[in-house]
Amino acid sequence: MTTRMEAASRWVLTDEVKFVAESEGISPEKVVRRLGRGEVVIVRNVIREVKPLGIGKGLRAKINANIGSSPDICDVELELRKADVAVKYGADTLMDLSTGGDLDDIRRRILKSVNVPVGTVPIYQAGIEAARKKGAIVDMDEDDMFNVIEKHAKDGVDFVTVHVGVTRENVKKLIESKRIIPMVSRGGTFHVAWILHHDQENPLYRNYDYLLEIAKEYDMTLSLGDGLRPGCIHDATDVPQISELVTIGHLVERARERGVQVIVEGPGHVPIHEIAANIKLQKAMCKGAPFYVLGPLVTDIAPGYDHIVGAIGGAIAALEGADFLCYVTPAEHLGLPSEEDVKLGVIAAKIAAHVADIARLGDKAAKRDHEMARARMNLDWEKQFSLALDPEKAQAYRERHPTREVACTMCGKYCAMKLISEALGRKDFSRLTC
Amino acid sequence: MTTRMEAASRWVLTDEVKFVAESEGISPEKVVRRLGRGEVVIVRNVIREVKPLGIGKGLRAKINANIGSSPDICDVELELRKADVAVKYGADTLMDLSTGGDLDDIRRRILKSVNVPVGTVPIYQAGIEAARKKGAIVDMDEDDMFNVIEKHAKDGVDFVTVHVGVTRENVKKLIESKRIIPMVSRGGTFHVAWILHHDQENPLYRNYDYLLEIAKEYDMTLSLGDGLRPGCIHDATDVPQISELVTIGHLVERARERGVQVIVEGPGHVPIHEIAANIKLQKAMCKGAPFYVLGPLVTDIAPGYDHIVGAIGGAIAALEGADFLCYVTPAEHLGLPSEEDVKLGVIAAKIAAHVADIARLGDKAAKRDHEMARARMNLDWEKQFSLALDPEKAQAYRERHPTREVACTMCGKYCAMKLISEALGRKDFSRLTC
Repeated sequence: MTTRMEAASRWVLTDEVKFVAESEGISPEKVVRRLGRGEVVIVRNVIREVKPLGIGKGLRAKINANIGSSPDICDVELELRKADVAVKYGADTLMDLSTGGDLDDIRRRILKSVNVPVGTVPIYQAGIEAARKKGAIVDMDEDDMFNVIEKHAKDGVDFVTVHVGVTRENVKKLIESKRIIPMVSRGGTFHVAWILHHDQENPLYRNYDYLLEIAKEYDMTLSLGDGLRPGCIHDATDVPQISELVTIGHLVERARERGVQVIVEGPGHVPIHEIAANIKLQKAMCKGAPFYVLGPLVTDIAPGYDHIVGAIGGAIAALEGADFLCYVTPAEHLGLPSEEDVKLGVIAAKIAAHVADIARLGDKAAKRDHEMARARMNLDWEKQFSLALDPEKAQAYRERHPTREVACTMCGKYCAMKLISEALGRKDFSRLTC
Repeated sequence: MTTRMEAASRWVLTDEVKFVAESEGISPEKVVRRLGRGEVVIVRNVIREVKPLGIGKGLRAKINANIGSSPDICDVELELRKADVAVKYGADTLMDLSTGGDLDDIRRRILKSVNVPVGTVPIYQAGIEAARKKGAIVDMDEDDMFNVIEKHAKDGVDFVTVHVGVTRENVKKLIESKRIIPMVSRGGTFHVAWILHHDQENPLYRNYDYLLEIAKEYDMTLSLGDGLRPGCIHDATDVPQISELVTIGHLVERARERGVQVIVEGPGHVPIHEIAANIKLQKAMCKGAPFYVLGPLVTDIAPGYDHIVGAIGGAIAALEGADFLCYVTPAEHLGLPSEEDVKLGVIAAKIAAHVADIARLGDKAAKRDHEMARARMNLDWEKQFSLALDPEKAQAYRERHPTREVACTMCGKYCAMKLISEALGRKDFSRLTC
């Protein structure tokens, strides 16, 4: 099979390429050029009926929402409702990170219910099923790992996280490190436990070519996961993290040689002043591969508000060149998110992506902001609501305190926009009364 | 009377200086040097009994919460409760922006009820009382303006916003500009209407020396207001804004010559990629004066979530050198904030200030983050709550889904921190079951 990356390197302007170009407002030539180089990916499993989504250089920053069951809370209907809420408020992709219940069933139902690309972390299922059937996570064997990945590909999963950078060499560096929190990646931890238990190399790394074969067959995008990402700002930008990134950089090149699309996952927890360096380093090590960051979270002291912390980090990351932001909900570090948490997480991530797009893409991205400004100046509330990321919430705020004023209850008759209209219109100043 | 700035320029290490130095963890010599140069201010009216608060170079970024009545909603008790909530969650200062009811009474009761510096915008009261007594805002005369400022000073107000940069010359530039929203500053609008109506210069600018005399008598800090600040990202960093900043820069120097402390107010609405330039420009024009920014808001399309938008802008502003962040609540652009909105606004601003402090001040600021990381690694939930910005909210999230697991309901038995402790501890891997 010819992958879209291979087609792009021969400059074939497929319908997918044209669709992405049109939805981004750029030329198909730009898309195909970047796709061929691996700076842009189009995330779609060939067997899945879903709108192709472009991620990467020169495109709008995209956002992902994680959903999925946990061992303690396993309710498929709840997860499907979360999926709907996430898509409603603007998630460009979803990841099903389920770890409780019938994993095949949940994944297939999510794939069926949404029209956006869906990603998974197959190693969860491999580890969990090994534990269920054989007694322990580390009892999964190499076949278990690859079989699950293939099963996800066959189900139509559009992108999968694979922790190929968790190598024996990098685990050594982790053990030598002085981290406060050695690891926070679940999938990464499964691999580290497996490597230490068996004293063997990570099968996904050792047999990376086989992984590429599976991905190639379905044109499924590989998201090279950062299993060794830092779990608090103290541990950010350290040896295990950067060593893993260097390993991943090599694997990016091997994937491209095979025509397999890759994106690269990044931290995580990063202090605000180290974000730019992290992005630039990833772009350099991974030859411009699209960068998918989790947050990043720029402080550890705001549990219950990590969607805000992630929005700060995500905005700066996207400004500096990150292409794909994984949302963080207010429930992060505390529990499985509710539907409301999913909504808040998506909106916060959307704000982060949008404010970076204004910087990255200029007026093309800021058009809606300018319309909002005009609606504000005209005190046209219906228009303001319609342009808001969350129209219902904006309207509810406005209506909380009914007022006869055309202005809001913050300034009432002293509304600056009302006053300045009158003053600059050289209207009768005696109307500026109270 | 000798002002603290004059004392500092003679290198006098007052108790105030020592108090600020100790609370910031820096040497009194550094504080006194920067105070003498005007790079740091200590905000306290000499007649008020309140802990002196340092704002400026090398100090923690501070945050302000705006409270106060509006024409539509005037409930003193509500405002006092908002004041308490703001201080509880970490507001370093409050501004009473009341525009409804008995303005003297509200201000005095707020001053009495809180132990943090309080600021006001006296022109509101001058304009509103002129409208009440004489018929129109523009009927206030020069004496009305100065008398209100003096009354606030006598009441013990610690800092006042004065729109001294709204000059005839700058209003001309505003009128020539192609802004979508000419103005959003209420106080600024009062001045513009007055200037156009009377065809005279702004009295606060014309008689700036008299303003300095009043400020000097009480060692009250002047916050030079940006009446011509942009009101949407489209209008950011334009001629009226920058012309006003240049005017303000001159006035900073005149204040320093008289030993009067000044801070400078800044936008407002600024796209993310223009924030750094705005901060650097202010620092250059105003010779390192502390910079007090409102937000800044980096998009216009998120009404109901402007506390998040402001946290993104504020974090970047403080990272780039802004010293003092005015919070924005989720009610911004929609209505007068409730107590809950005040809480959300303060926490968002606190996050912004803190994440910038980690960059500005290093481990001194990040100590609490590192403690939180240790508490997370130990799965010590009580310790995590005690270190959280909002302990009650964090605890409520954790307890939403009761679990028997020591980990949270996100990962349950697959908690990476639990698994990696076992794996790296070389414990029995068969315990990694499910």
